Amino acid sequence: MLDKVGKYEFLAEPFHCDFSKRLFMGHLGNHMLNAADFHAAHRGFGMTYLNPLHKTWVLSRLAIEMEKMPPQYAKFYVETWVEGVMKFFTNRNFRVVDAEDENLVYGYGRSIWALIDTDSRQPQNIMDIRDGEILNYIETDKACPIGALSRVRMSKDAGLVASVPTHYSDVDVNGHINSVKYIEHVLDLFALDTYREYRIKRFDIAYVAESYYGDTLNYYREDVSDDVFCVRITRVPPESSEETEVCRCKIEFVKD
Amino acid sequence: MLDKVGKYEFLAEPFHCDFSKRLFMGHLGNHMLNAADFHAAHRGFGMTYLNPLHKTWVLSRLAIEMEKMPPQYAKFYVETWVEGVMKFFTNRNFRVVDAEDENLVYGYGRSIWALIDTDSRQPQNIMDIRDGEILNYIETDKACPIGALSRVRMSKDAGLVASVPTHYSDVDVNGHINSVKYIEHVLDLFALDTYREYRIKRFDIAYVAESYYGDTLNYYREDVSDDVFCVRITRVPPESSEETEVCRCKIEFVKD
Repeated sequence: MLDKVGKYEFLAEPFHCDFSKRLFMGHLGNHMLNAADFHAAHRGFGMTYLNPLHKTWVLSRLAIEMEKMPPQYAKFYVETWVEGVMKFFTNRNFRVVDAEDENLVYGYGRSIWALIDTDSRQPQNIMDIRDGEILNYIETDKACPIGALSRVRMSKDAGLVASVPTHYSDVDVNGHINSVKYIEHVLDLFALDTYREYRIKRFDIAYVAESYYGDTLNYYREDVSDDVFCVRITRVPPESSEETEVCRCKIEFVKD
Repeated sequence: MLDKVGKYEFLAEPFHCDFSKRLFMGHLGNHMLNAADFHAAHRGFGMTYLNPLHKTWVLSRLAIEMEKMPPQYAKFYVETWVEGVMKFFTNRNFRVVDAEDENLVYGYGRSIWALIDTDSRQPQNIMDIRDGEILNYIETDKACPIGALSRVRMSKDAGLVASVPTHYSDVDVNGHINSVKYIEHVLDLFALDTYREYRIKRFDIAYVAESYYGDTLNYYREDVSDDVFCVRITRVPPESSEETEVCRCKIEFVKD
């Protein structure tokens, strides 16, 4: 049986780094989703096994909390493991650590994934997959010393700050707007000066519904404090005035 | 001495693939730039050697011509080599080939790079770098069976089709708008239906000047034929009305 913890090496590629020469958080999020995908696939419950059964994993929540971001050209590992399984959901954690100095921990992540039927979009019982074999891979001893995932509560006071059409490059292999693109678009709401003064300490995103090519995405921002912001994204389908919530994010900046 | 041809393996990651489950051309362009960077670095004329000497490589032109794009999860190699060197410029070629079946050639690329001084931005004599050692790495026998790089000539008739501010995620480690982002933004000018009917056969981009955070980028499109389009990008700096050209692109679509 494979280790409970999967460990995958990545490189902080120069074009994936921001002006401060450290990895963009969107690209780190992408590496985490890749690590999750590889970990599940190698253990028999990945997309290539599930999709022919008309089932798929859907990312429901993600939190990334960093002490620092890997610098340009750093090789680093994303470790990932399943901390717990409920009937319809798994909790999956991440640790990001330098590949040359494993005492250098860059940060951690937490996520929740739902198993759904690709036709009905209804939740599916995870225990029905290979007789609940995922239970053999639950790892509760490995530390993930960051706060729990947030539902991202927002007041009604958030103001519209951007309204942006969706484009070809936003659309993923499932025909939905790519989960990571929301992170990039939300971080693009802040001016470069914000990133000169602050770094992102933590990013929470709670996915509520899918959006699609042709939708216009509206971004509503609530300033919780000087360095904490929440953003609600809604979708308006083409030739429609019906606005529905797609996701909510919370961004915590810090001065080092 | 290392081989003249460098060969680097990449994975067509799921979140780097479009709705047709094949790699986005922007991500392929990024892999090519990485391969160029690794090839130069390993042979002693990369950025980490040049930057302390206040010199850098600047991408001047890039053409990518594909028979097909690597599908989701495919492992593929980007091979790269220097075909020729002039005083201020190098010609660098690329071949993209499947990692499991090296008879499966996905496509090719061509590029021109200028060596410049990072302070004066003036062209520098490439022969001054390690006494012209780059000449030992010129490879003229390896085939690159695609047309020459295009200057992308455009008429004055191109019409303004988009005017978009620059954002945090557009800015690269040098503080300029990322070369690959132009490719993504240009491809986003076309509707998803275009990509349902056609695939990109060839993409040429000629870089004219840098643009910066705060600039507004204007996109002018000229329809050369039903399946060939040119796009000129200009920049307008903040609180300015001066418009200057940044790059020109030519996109050739094909029905398979």
